[in-house]
Amino acid sequence: MIDERVARAGLTRLVEPADGRVLDALAQAGAARLYDEIVQRRADRGLSDDAAGRVSRLDPDRELEQAGARGIRFLIPGDAEWPAQLDDLAHSPAVNQMQGVPIGLWVRGPLRLHEIHTSVAIVGSRSSTTYGEAAAAAIAAGVAREGRAVVSGAAFGIDQAAHRGAVALAGPSVAVLACGVDRVYPAAHRDLIGHLAETGAVVSELPPGCAPMRMRFLARNRLIAGLAAGTVLVEAAIRSGALNTAAWTDSLSRPLMGVPGPVSSAQSQGVHHWIRSGAATLVTGSADVLEVIGGSGQHVRDEPRAEVGPRDRLTVRHRRVLEAVPLSRPAPLESIAATAGIDLLDTQSALRHLDRCGLAVHTDGGWCLGDSAREDPRSAS
Amino acid sequence: MIDERVARAGLTRLVEPADGRVLDALAQAGAARLYDEIVQRRADRGLSDDAAGRVSRLDPDRELEQAGARGIRFLIPGDAEWPAQLDDLAHSPAVNQMQGVPIGLWVRGPLRLHEIHTSVAIVGSRSSTTYGEAAAAAIAAGVAREGRAVVSGAAFGIDQAAHRGAVALAGPSVAVLACGVDRVYPAAHRDLIGHLAETGAVVSELPPGCAPMRMRFLARNRLIAGLAAGTVLVEAAIRSGALNTAAWTDSLSRPLMGVPGPVSSAQSQGVHHWIRSGAATLVTGSADVLEVIGGSGQHVRDEPRAEVGPRDRLTVRHRRVLEAVPLSRPAPLESIAATAGIDLLDTQSALRHLDRCGLAVHTDGGWCLGDSAREDPRSAS
Repeated sequence: MIDERVARAGLTRLVEPADGRVLDALAQAGAARLYDEIVQRRADRGLSDDAAGRVSRLDPDRELEQAGARGIRFLIPGDAEWPAQLDDLAHSPAVNQMQGVPIGLWVRGPLRLHEIHTSVAIVGSRSSTTYGEAAAAAIAAGVAREGRAVVSGAAFGIDQAAHRGAVALAGPSVAVLACGVDRVYPAAHRDLIGHLAETGAVVSELPPGCAPMRMRFLARNRLIAGLAAGTVLVEAAIRSGALNTAAWTDSLSRPLMGVPGPVSSAQSQGVHHWIRSGAATLVTGSADVLEVIGGSGQHVRDEPRAEVGPRDRLTVRHRRVLEAVPLSRPAPLESIAATAGIDLLDTQSALRHLDRCGLAVHTDGGWCLGDSAREDPRSAS
Repeated sequence: MIDERVARAGLTRLVEPADGRVLDALAQAGAARLYDEIVQRRADRGLSDDAAGRVSRLDPDRELEQAGARGIRFLIPGDAEWPAQLDDLAHSPAVNQMQGVPIGLWVRGPLRLHEIHTSVAIVGSRSSTTYGEAAAAAIAAGVAREGRAVVSGAAFGIDQAAHRGAVALAGPSVAVLACGVDRVYPAAHRDLIGHLAETGAVVSELPPGCAPMRMRFLARNRLIAGLAAGTVLVEAAIRSGALNTAAWTDSLSRPLMGVPGPVSSAQSQGVHHWIRSGAATLVTGSADVLEVIGGSGQHVRDEPRAEVGPRDRLTVRHRRVLEAVPLSRPAPLESIAATAGIDLLDTQSALRHLDRCGLAVHTDGGWCLGDSAREDPRSAS
């Protein structure tokens, strides 16, 4: 029987990610026996047939050695660096018939994955708008400022903006790929992915050399959701692939957040749909995000407030008189006193105070609101 | 004892709207006796003192007659035209120490108020953006298209856009004012309010001639919320007066909806806050609004869908093969069959089908995704 680590490395080459049949067999037989069974075409459930075309190219011992020489490490469950938050995938419902804890993770970069359990995933449309990119970068920067890692998929658009937002603050960022960590997809992101491999981490459950494929993106998305404490969806049209990451977050019962945008923008339609249904919480910036995933209450932020105006410093009586002062046509002292339900002398004294604050002015016809009162947006409507 | 209607008309002149003391006294004594007590300075709870300055100008019989001559009617609870939905205000919690069913309503215009129980209130900031105004007008038009009235406050900005959106479809619209229905506030809306008085309704609980005052706006907002089946908040900064109408809607336990906007817009901050807290439902257009307030299910709309693409018409096997086709670097038939876990002949047949659909193409090195597959936004990320 070969070593557990070597067997798992070999299995990542033999089978596709997130295959429930593999996970069942792995749980029953263990990695070494399952590897052996597949290689010798004795495995159940069609696994041997599917893997048949790959057996000839197999040498996991040598592969691990070569990867190590290129700065690529291979993590398996139970390793000190294993991100234990991924283990929740063992119990979460399948999405698109995919499921499960990865067999192992191929990793490049200095960031230690067991330290990113407080990380935030920021994902969204590849065909994003300037608005969405700015929002993603700002949230990523706010997350990085808290010392938390930003997890995304290194795609065009929102993913790129999220990584860049973290990188701009020298914050750690993790790219999870749907191909081998030695490959670059999309090709235009060679510098970005290279930078993340030097400063953060580039992660995949596929062994080096593997090409990106549609089903691998769908499997990859569960790792983005599974590595992070919560996921922020920035822009996503109705059929955006980013909604798949949202579905994984939902499946994991982790906080799903959405950044709203103009209702006229197709790129915000998918996000609005998830907020509207109650599956995602509306967030407008990193403060909201940190509050939602904070849990411990350390990030509970103040309610948004406007600045304190002169009106806020009034006594109850002064305020009552102010509320009786007309907006436009001036009213005499007697009329204001009657409206306020306060006697003449007290009303007169209050009006003098309001005059000093700029809240009321005396003109020919009587009293009306002053400039300071008009500037207050609460003064009407 | 004077007639109930005359007494109530007189009371609207004697007391300020939404005063809990008045409602208690009205419930105990009835309108005729309360009117008499206040006029003769025998009323409890300071009501007589507050009203003292107004008694001398009082002649409700003549006032009703003069109003009628000017096309202004006065409705009281129990009238055939009385909008019974306002009676919910008798039991809803106070907002800003204000509360209660109005003593009566002064009304101009052909629209009958007992017919607007399905109406929708659309309110928001006076200092609105072009984006917000367009959203308000579009929702109002969609509401009007359903034959429902649009209720708002005739203010600048969102209110104006909402009224105009309904008027553009020759739909009924109701302006609730914080001054007498014979007055115009703001003055620039003389034409708008005049048009609503000719085609819809202009409503106030204040008698003709009364000036707009701050506290009257706060009382007025409860009528906007109380007349409508639900309220849509379009744009509102953190301290916008429109949030007061939202609070009244909440107090009435009626549906409160919010239109999201760019997170960078201060005008959407208040709306986002209410959506985020769960007090308001996110809506992106009139279809959402009608679904939320529909209740009966007649407006339950379809989930938003993208158009059906060639991918949606594939069999399970064809789809599985498609998912094994690389995005970029072409792969040979054998490799695709191994990845898909399907035998060579079936894979070849599937690839030919995918080729005909434009989903896969054969090049020198093997097979990769075709143009139709690339156009599908779900194909990656």
